[in-house]
Amino acid sequence: MKNERAILLLHCPDQQGILAKVTGFVNENSGNILYLDQHVDREEGIFYMRLEWDLATFSIPRDRIDEYFNTLFAKRYHLHYELYFSNQKPRMALFVSKMSHCLYDILARVSDGEWNVHISCIISNHTDLEPIAKRFGIPFYHHHVTKQNKHAEEKKEIEILKKHNVDFIVLARYMQILSEEFVSNYPNKVINIHHSFLPAFAGAKPYHAAHKRGVKIIGATSHYVTSDLDAGPIIMQDITQISHKDTVQNLVHKGRDLEKIVLSQAVYKHISHKVLVYNNRTVVFS
Amino acid sequence: MKNERAILLLHCPDQQGILAKVTGFVNENSGNILYLDQHVDREEGIFYMRLEWDLATFSIPRDRIDEYFNTLFAKRYHLHYELYFSNQKPRMALFVSKMSHCLYDILARVSDGEWNVHISCIISNHTDLEPIAKRFGIPFYHHHVTKQNKHAEEKKEIEILKKHNVDFIVLARYMQILSEEFVSNYPNKVINIHHSFLPAFAGAKPYHAAHKRGVKIIGATSHYVTSDLDAGPIIMQDITQISHKDTVQNLVHKGRDLEKIVLSQAVYKHISHKVLVYNNRTVVFS
Amino acid sequence: MKNERAILLLHCPDQQGILAKVTGFVNENSGNILYLDQHVDREEGIFYMRLEWDLATFSIPRDRIDEYFNTLFAKRYHLHYELYFSNQKPRMALFVSKMSHCLYDILARVSDGEWNVHISCIISNHTDLEPIAKRFGIPFYHHHVTKQNKHAEEKKEIEILKKHNVDFIVLARYMQILSEEFVSNYPNKVINIHHSFLPAFAGAKPYHAAHKRGVKIIGATSHYVTSDLDAGPIIMQDITQISHKDTVQNLVHKGRDLEKIVLSQAVYKHISHKVLVYNNRTVVFS
Amino acid sequence: MKNERAILLLHCPDQQGILAKVTGFVNENSGNILYLDQHVDREEGIFYMRLEWDLATFSIPRDRIDEYFNTLFAKRYHLHYELYFSNQKPRMALFVSKMSHCLYDILARVSDGEWNVHISCIISNHTDLEPIAKRFGIPFYHHHVTKQNKHAEEKKEIEILKKHNVDFIVLARYMQILSEEFVSNYPNKVINIHHSFLPAFAGAKPYHAAHKRGVKIIGATSHYVTSDLDAGPIIMQDITQISHKDTVQNLVHKGRDLEKIVLSQAVYKHISHKVLVYNNRTVVFS
Repeated sequence: MKNERAILLLHCPDQQGILAKVTGFVNENSGNILYLDQHVDREEGIFYMRLEWDLATFSIPRDRIDEYFNTLFAKRYHLHYELYFSNQKPRMALFVSKMSHCLYDILARVSDGEWNVHISCIISNHTDLEPIAKRFGIPFYHHHVTKQNKHAEEKKEIEILKKHNVDFIVLARYMQILSEEFVSNYPNKVINIHHSFLPAFAGAKPYHAAHKRGVKIIGATSHYVTSDLDAGPIIMQDITQISHKDTVQNLVHKGRDLEKIVLSQAVYKHISHKVLVYNNRTVVFS
Repeated sequence: MKNERAILLLHCPDQQGILAKVTGFVNENSGNILYLDQHVDREEGIFYMRLEWDLATFSIPRDRIDEYFNTLFAKRYHLHYELYFSNQKPRMALFVSKMSHCLYDILARVSDGEWNVHISCIISNHTDLEPIAKRFGIPFYHHHVTKQNKHAEEKKEIEILKKHNVDFIVLARYMQILSEEFVSNYPNKVINIHHSFLPAFAGAKPYHAAHKRGVKIIGATSHYVTSDLDAGPIIMQDITQISHKDTVQNLVHKGRDLEKIVLSQAVYKHISHKVLVYNNRTVVFS
Repeated sequence: MKNERAILLLHCPDQQGILAKVTGFVNENSGNILYLDQHVDREEGIFYMRLEWDLATFSIPRDRIDEYFNTLFAKRYHLHYELYFSNQKPRMALFVSKMSHCLYDILARVSDGEWNVHISCIISNHTDLEPIAKRFGIPFYHHHVTKQNKHAEEKKEIEILKKHNVDFIVLARYMQILSEEFVSNYPNKVINIHHSFLPAFAGAKPYHAAHKRGVKIIGATSHYVTSDLDAGPIIMQDITQISHKDTVQNLVHKGRDLEKIVLSQAVYKHISHKVLVYNNRTVVFS
Repeated sequence: MKNERAILLLHCPDQQGILAKVTGFVNENSGNILYLDQHVDREEGIFYMRLEWDLATFSIPRDRIDEYFNTLFAKRYHLHYELYFSNQKPRMALFVSKMSHCLYDILARVSDGEWNVHISCIISNHTDLEPIAKRFGIPFYHHHVTKQNKHAEEKKEIEILKKHNVDFIVLARYMQILSEEFVSNYPNKVINIHHSFLPAFAGAKPYHAAHKRGVKIIGATSHYVTSDLDAGPIIMQDITQISHKDTVQNLVHKGRDLEKIVLSQAVYKHISHKVLVYNNRTVVFS
């Protein structure tokens, strides 16, 4: 049985000694640092850090760490931070449409115990994947969203998400555009997979567009959703080589493997608290 | 010493038995087929083929093959073809500006005997790389091209290319846009390297744009130049993974290796007569 | 609804005109060729070919094609061939142990209709994955294989495979070595996934060995099982970059994605009848 | 003009606060940290770090930094360190045989100013590449090494290296095995490129072996040379996909691009002082 750990994600204006001060705080209170990674963006002058330490010997009680950190660092260093604990299981909602490959990939990982996450519910604008939800024993909600009822349906969806105490949302090939209003409720908390190497082929039918353009690689991009379509902060990208032999159907087929892996890797980074967003870009710690 | 070989590249409307007929022509005339690759684009209904055979035992004299093929196949099957012989050395001109990495990569391969090609001349809008041309004993022409004199300078360049009997042109990080008129003289004969995974980041400063967008991969694309900037038929693409740690300078640095390899691989395919262009896309045989 | 297609896989000593003769046979009997790929191994002098044609217009009845082909080609050209029909669903058995990622990946693809295959049964030396089999409604057989009872248990397994008319077997991270006798019943019909880029790190605990050696890439290899451990014909390989930061646990974690994709891609090639084996190597058509 | 920077590479037993202490030392003496990366190997209990800081404002004179660091840290923390300055140009010797691609790649980068390194001399057991050395104005030494004269010739080579004050050696496809004695003079200072993804296909003719085994990927590995052939600490590895179509000649051809890039990337890491060796493995900082 592993000890509980505290995980701190932070960014602030870069300043001399900030790394030493933060690590010093943990050391002086008898915390054993298990993970430290940092990054300085020297152009923007921003310091980013992820710290993980064992709480077993830490002299500050778990429920007072936030208060301490806030008092000692937040204002003084204009420091934004997020504090997590290893025994908290993030609660995820999945939005799906008709394609099952990303959904299955995520369900398999969670069933397998590969990820420390709880799937609260699956929401869909179609009923095609309801049997899969049932098979894995996960609540499934069907919302037939149209242009006309979008506002009302999204309101209901947000209520469901609140009821389930959902921390973040994964769009597992969800073929609907969420409204700006919806997205504003979950800033950097909605992860999408787009089936192209963005910014190439944003929008609809990227494989058709890729085929038409005659590219020799196709890709997939996982990103946080913002109000700007397919333009949010990129978390992960990967590609595969194709050739003139590949029809659009082949691209769709080959793309599936990319999509599911690139999405799942982004979700894994997110639930591991290894992604920081700043200026529409991400720092993804290793 | 290898025997001389004939190389046939063709495309035509797909029709029953066309493959058998063309290979039959070679077989019946005692030609030993050394390479055969074909592709049928079933959506467009086009048949593409590359055939290579030993001329040592071939019963039709080398200088009459074209005539035979034209008579037997061209009109009858609406067939477009190109006929090459292995002992012909394609003549290449290089256009460069200030960066040397692609130039060096090509010069090294040619010096090494890796490629069956002759470098006729190097043309540049700067004098920076003239010492390299001298070092390798290749004629160097400096043309200071501006908006005002572009038409006149390009005319002079075409005269140089004609004087040197140049078959095709490689833009080895040439930082000038060739005019539509210039390009029309060399259809599918001008190979460019663009430092992004097109169609993403077409135009100027792609590494800056990539850094700003926060992508996790950068790429390079070699393509034939058409009148439409960065939109010609793609020959090769490759990418490399990057991270938040990479500054624009790092991208420029990492990109160099991609650029030179992706350009050289495209040139190699071109001089091996393995690229066919149709509808702004390429068939690249293996 | 697509028409039924015939699929022919063959190899024979390379000889003039063989390609024209085989395609001629299809053309002359009004078969519309939908796929043709061929390969000549000039060192070994072997011709390999895969042909696929529409049966709707084919003048030879489906059940006599084999006879025709045998009579016209097999002996005359020392030609080995396999004939398949697109509406035949290959029947697959899965062997698993305790890890579920490869199993889930395959089940998801089959459930999804991505593959034209029937999963007949799952056989395991452990009961851990039985609930997954039940969830997907697939017969599950538990055989506790030990050194002592191996011979007897394998006999029972072969009976199960026969009862289910199994065409081929996929070892989806099955952590037992099949006996030479067992394997001899299914030549080039047992697909394994090994968690290294073979021939590096054959045998047990490849991730531990990779970590110890300090490699910068890890890989996975799918291959047909032969009596020689981890030395059968390789179908697919892929790798992922790692670094000094990766512990053995990380390698195991990262490797899972490789393993499942590389195995599933090999299975897909196999059920698409695109793999030919000769001299312990594979020709894998595109 | 950039300010001069100090670069510190260190490793020591992991201990609480070591990071804070080392960065504190720089901060307290008014050094502006420009780069910091660290790694803790928790299994072995080793702390690794690379630190780079601006010397313009640093209060300790450049030539006393070593003394300070030694006194304050080395013994106390059982800390091994290397101290470099950005305006020191490492001095490199190149060992070559007959193939020029790696040599050209390195010469091009140095000519281009891409690398901060000085090429002192080229040593070869053949004269084939002497003209290239001349073309680039670099001293060339020919040593016809045989089994019989190896000891004597290597002694002469070491004298040449000493005369040129060589800091490290790059074996740019040098087809001779250096003696244990020779290597012992340059621990972790001789970089080799092996044309396989080690540990697969160590030793002679890896492309032949790869072809025979029927692998679907080939690779290249750059590593520090130790007395154990092809078994030294790996710095970089990369691979490329191949297929049944590739002859041994194709592998040799495709492999060249891998070899030169993988070697040059390793050399770049080495001259950037980003490689630490411990227990026959490397930490390669980004």
